[in-house]
Amino acid sequence: MQKIRLADAFEKVEGYWSPRLAARVNGTDVRLARLKGEFVWHAHAEEDELFLVVEGTLLLRFRDREVTLGPGEMLLVPRGVEHCPVAPQECRVLLIEPATTVNTGAVREARTQRDVPPL
Amino acid sequence: MQKIRLADAFEKVEGYWSPRLAARVNGTDVRLARLKGEFVWHAHAEEDELFLVVEGTLLLRFRDREVTLGPGEMLLVPRGVEHCPVAPQECRVLLIEPATTVNTGAVREARTQRDVPPL
Repeated sequence: MQKIRLADAFEKVEGYWSPRLAARVNGTDVRLARLKGEFVWHAHAEEDELFLVVEGTLLLRFRDREVTLGPGEMLLVPRGVEHCPVAPQECRVLLIEPATTVNTGAVREARTQRDVPPL
Repeated sequence: MQKIRLADAFEKVEGYWSPRLAARVNGTDVRLARLKGEFVWHAHAEEDELFLVVEGTLLLRFRDREVTLGPGEMLLVPRGVEHCPVAPQECRVLLIEPATTVNTGAVREARTQRDVPPL
């Protein structure tokens, strides 16, 4: 049992769109990711995904609208809902999602990451 | 899909040691709680429980040591591990734990809360 200071932990996250595992709560992951630029449109068929912004600004685009999240704001994206995260500047997020969640959902592209290495 | 601003959401949490449900990610709850004073020693037989401090200071007492968490710090308490949370001043925490988790574990006392009402 080691406490995690988010500010320190984000310094260990290398690259963008490449989450690291901070903790697993039963079958649910708490992941940390640094985001910058535009990701890919995708959905997670079986998994809900919660975004909590720790630093910066995150735009979550949906097919019919867009939600902007700042530090201390969070949004639950229900399973099956297509979304495209966009971070105009670097943004640091804490993700809560089932351990089975692949970052790009059913889409396969260069940033697809099947394994989520621990911090 | 409504975004949640933590600072606003905590204003809706009435009383201490009485978590409210902010979001459910598949079977896992994200709960918000205001803590003050000393809680009860307990363990969750089947559930891991993650404490993320948003505001204030939280002491997590274990039988063999104590961990102090400040804002932006988190700790995973694995299932079966006895703990006693203590907040000398009001502390605001985000909890990540299975939806089955009862706040006092197997202990039953005045602050036991079986249902976790939504925000």
